[in-house]
Amino acid sequence: MALPSHGSNPHYLYEALEIEMPESVLDFSANINPLGPPLRIKERWSEFFEGILNYPDPHAVELTKLIAKKEALPEQSVLVGNGGAEIIMLVANRLANKKVLIIQPAFAEYAEACLAAECEVDFHQLDAPEWQLDLDRLIPQLPEYDAIFLCTPNNPTGISFKKEAVRELIKECGKANCLVVLDEAFYDFTENAFTYASLITQFPHLLILRSMTKIFAIPGLRLGYLLAAPDIINQAKTYKSHWSVNHVALEVGKICLAEEEYIEKTRAYIQLQKQKLFRFYEEHELIVSNSTVNFYLVKDESLSLLPFLLKKGIVPRHTYNFPGLDGKWLRFAVKSERDNAMLMEGVRQWRNLGSVL
Amino acid sequence: MALPSHGSNPHYLYEALEIEMPESVLDFSANINPLGPPLRIKERWSEFFEGILNYPDPHAVELTKLIAKKEALPEQSVLVGNGGAEIIMLVANRLANKKVLIIQPAFAEYAEACLAAECEVDFHQLDAPEWQLDLDRLIPQLPEYDAIFLCTPNNPTGISFKKEAVRELIKECGKANCLVVLDEAFYDFTENAFTYASLITQFPHLLILRSMTKIFAIPGLRLGYLLAAPDIINQAKTYKSHWSVNHVALEVGKICLAEEEYIEKTRAYIQLQKQKLFRFYEEHELIVSNSTVNFYLVKDESLSLLPFLLKKGIVPRHTYNFPGLDGKWLRFAVKSERDNAMLMEGVRQWRNLGSVL
Repeated sequence: MALPSHGSNPHYLYEALEIEMPESVLDFSANINPLGPPLRIKERWSEFFEGILNYPDPHAVELTKLIAKKEALPEQSVLVGNGGAEIIMLVANRLANKKVLIIQPAFAEYAEACLAAECEVDFHQLDAPEWQLDLDRLIPQLPEYDAIFLCTPNNPTGISFKKEAVRELIKECGKANCLVVLDEAFYDFTENAFTYASLITQFPHLLILRSMTKIFAIPGLRLGYLLAAPDIINQAKTYKSHWSVNHVALEVGKICLAEEEYIEKTRAYIQLQKQKLFRFYEEHELIVSNSTVNFYLVKDESLSLLPFLLKKGIVPRHTYNFPGLDGKWLRFAVKSERDNAMLMEGVRQWRNLGSVL
Repeated sequence: MALPSHGSNPHYLYEALEIEMPESVLDFSANINPLGPPLRIKERWSEFFEGILNYPDPHAVELTKLIAKKEALPEQSVLVGNGGAEIIMLVANRLANKKVLIIQPAFAEYAEACLAAECEVDFHQLDAPEWQLDLDRLIPQLPEYDAIFLCTPNNPTGISFKKEAVRELIKECGKANCLVVLDEAFYDFTENAFTYASLITQFPHLLILRSMTKIFAIPGLRLGYLLAAPDIINQAKTYKSHWSVNHVALEVGKICLAEEEYIEKTRAYIQLQKQKLFRFYEEHELIVSNSTVNFYLVKDESLSLLPFLLKKGIVPRHTYNFPGLDGKWLRFAVKSERDNAMLMEGVRQWRNLGSVL
């Protein structure tokens, strides 16, 4: 059985590796806000029932307005979708049969969606352990491509690319007539929530993908959006199935957009947890990616940490399907203080076994 | 402003026709079970909250098993989707750049999805007011096409095609190497719930679309599925965005599949209501389609009934975007006894104005 190509739903990983799954597990493979969903969602949950009787607004007008306001962009530059995954698929359909370059390591869904749309897909590999952009190598290639995909902050490494480099890349893509698809699914978790969204009005070849699933801890609901020039938004709409975002997701989305304090609180919590974790990894002489967000990579050339933790009920995200990582790094979400302590205890035990491995 | 291409969300229709929308309206434009969702959904609603914290199962394994059991088909012949609309889009992607024939009048989404996938789309028009298949005219055309779309029971007319004709059409398509896409979104509402699903194992070129949205009155949630040979299911999966069906929809779907009594009760209720409605239309000398399901067409050559009812807060589904109907028929859902009585009162008033129109 092939290893699952995404985190979450850990039983698929246990089955693939033929390891018995303990009755309760701690799942570090999904990068979800450890504070859980904003309280107001639970408070208002019972209200959402009545709305299941009616078709959702296919144009998501109210949520679109709120997003446009938050992003300081025209409503025509916003398209709400059924999670980041639907947005990626819409973008891939727009690029059908064209030639695309994926800068990796990166979220596996870009390649899957582009291949399904019969794109010609090439990869540009960044070098561990910094994974920064090498423009001298990248820019000469751009004229060959109709689009490039860049995930920043990057999933799975957690690093943010240098801003000047990203800005220059966007400009050079414009000259080369190449679309730039920037996936900012995790931007909310960075210390200052830096985004390239303000460049949308300036660059008609720039597309920004956003997810509301991670920061608001609502992966079970699915919600994301695309920011781009109105022309691109209109094209993407033609590929979208009617009513793709359901009523509950639309209502919850409207609540989430008012939760600025919750985002601030999340950021502070993540920073604090990361300090503790990174101090631990340093003390134990483990190599960790320079993450700016709520997950990070830990290096394990021995490939033994994954099965060791799984047997203890601690679930990392394997990296066998990230070329260049090849399973030799593991990705972990930053979870609650208690959960992170359990992880550190597990890693400590594995480290202490080091000499006999 | 163009008229909306689907029912529901009536404010879009009022805006397009520049008619002021009354504060409360009765919406007959969405074909939803008038009994509302099964009671157990409301009873269990609060339980669904916890699940929003986790990614839904991208393979919908549990729901797929229940559907396969209900349909007496292998699990490999079932693909769960985010409403019938997503399933139609997946099928259209499978047909990208190919030549398709849509038998109409029919749900507008087939043509929209196929055109977005750059199919060459032709239409085969059935004749009012019977709208039955004319195989002598249809069969010679089949070798030209890669796929045909047939909606049975038909939306918007509500008629069921003669079974022998549909079976012969399926066989002839096999000979002509042409896929058959049968949309059975409303089959549950027919008197004996007749379906062609058992033919799936026999004919690898047959695809059946199903919706759970209408019969279980959950359009706000989105849930549907595709039944087809495993090869076709596997192809369709490659176009599907990951986690497209959210947690709440998956949980509600599992509840719905146990609700056989509720479906029986629904059928009996619809039959009774239709008898009353159709007696009324006959008494008032109005022509009505021979519907087997929970909606029907009423003929109005004068085009005056639509604005008359809208002003009263009664919302029909216009048919301006159904070629061959051209607005001269209106579609109405069969709703509750009380709502249907309000509709009949509205139609009676319009009829009494007949001489001065």
